[in-house]
Amino acid sequence: MNDHTSRSYEEELSRLKDLTATMGELTQEQLEGVLEAIERFDKDLAARVIEREPEADRLEHQIDSLVVRMLALRQPVAVDLREILTGLRTANELERICDYAEDVAGRIVALHATEVAPTRSLINLGQFAAAMVKDAMRAYGERNAQDAQSVWLRDKEVDEMYTALFRELLTYMMEDPRRISASTQMLFIARAFERVGDRATNIAEMVNYMVRGETIEEPRPKGDTTKTMVPPSES
Amino acid sequence: MNDHTSRSYEEELSRLKDLTATMGELTQEQLEGVLEAIERFDKDLAARVIEREPEADRLEHQIDSLVVRMLALRQPVAVDLREILTGLRTANELERICDYAEDVAGRIVALHATEVAPTRSLINLGQFAAAMVKDAMRAYGERNAQDAQSVWLRDKEVDEMYTALFRELLTYMMEDPRRISASTQMLFIARAFERVGDRATNIAEMVNYMVRGETIEEPRPKGDTTKTMVPPSES
Repeated sequence: MNDHTSRSYEEELSRLKDLTATMGELTQEQLEGVLEAIERFDKDLAARVIEREPEADRLEHQIDSLVVRMLALRQPVAVDLREILTGLRTANELERICDYAEDVAGRIVALHATEVAPTRSLINLGQFAAAMVKDAMRAYGERNAQDAQSVWLRDKEVDEMYTALFRELLTYMMEDPRRISASTQMLFIARAFERVGDRATNIAEMVNYMVRGETIEEPRPKGDTTKTMVPPSES
Repeated sequence: MNDHTSRSYEEELSRLKDLTATMGELTQEQLEGVLEAIERFDKDLAARVIEREPEADRLEHQIDSLVVRMLALRQPVAVDLREILTGLRTANELERICDYAEDVAGRIVALHATEVAPTRSLINLGQFAAAMVKDAMRAYGERNAQDAQSVWLRDKEVDEMYTALFRELLTYMMEDPRRISASTQMLFIARAFERVGDRATNIAEMVNYMVRGETIEEPRPKGDTTKTMVPPSES
């Protein structure tokens, strides 16, 4: 590889890093948008999150094209290849997180203000998951495997928060069947935030792999017991 | 590229195709497993689906490693590169579908027999989504863009079935709050099947891209209106 090739290769790697960081910022803004929309019950803000969704698709498409070009024209090996593939997969995870933000925004738009409860637990869960995304992307930017691992460990906590909220929502529905329809939407919003945390954990795993060249061997700690939950009224 | 390199490259491509096909068959078996488990309310069968989940992870890992090696050691361009990346992404979609099957299986294990209703609509939705996966994988195996496009067009139908079932489940919960807990699990099972259809559609899109080298330009037809649904009792 001559100097010229090598320089433009470095430029491409740095462009990949920039694009992924930009996509990370957009994802952060989308999550903050829906959280604020829930807190203030602001449907216009939720609608703006939906409007911005194509930005995520465009960024992912740009990253995809760049990666395909880099793989085709260069022969990346070892750490470079890991870096390129991590960029590709991180972009894919971010795009899915933006999809969840859009999904949540769509549900907010359809809700009535009086139906939105319990708001606090939902926002706490969403903020916790959003912080995981932020920290996973910082670990990616700084190539910090240790920080990535600490994000990875928080997956259990997000699962536990989700389980508690799930229980709260079931109780809420049982107390008053008129709340069933809205609470079902809240259940799906809660589930979306839990999935956001899961995808932040995926990013953290990839950052660890990119930096260390090896995968985390321990099984991911899980705290989601909603599938086997006995509802409060039956326990 | 000399004959020897070229031959072993062909071998790798064919191994990638075989691994992806094997993973497609496993995915099919996992979906059939949960559908039969729901139909006969067979918790042992559901437990076996959960036990087999690591097979999907292993296959995806093998495909990942093979693709990384092919990208690193060869310089695939144009159709070969598209084929390799489609294999990688298809494996990723299949792994997520297997995750949904495992998620559904976990919910079945925790349900009581008397709570499982409305079973028929749920099985219809699941079978429809499973058929989409099967047809998308056949289109992949046969490199048939036309068949892929016909899978892609069925996404709207799966969304409509999901929307109808969602409405049915809400009504069911409102009629008797004691059904809320179980019906919530059924809602998540329905949602999982809807997502399976979505991922089959993703595979179909990639097969079309692999064969034709261009993406489907029209927006994906959507029929999921559950987010904005007015429940039966309020309409």
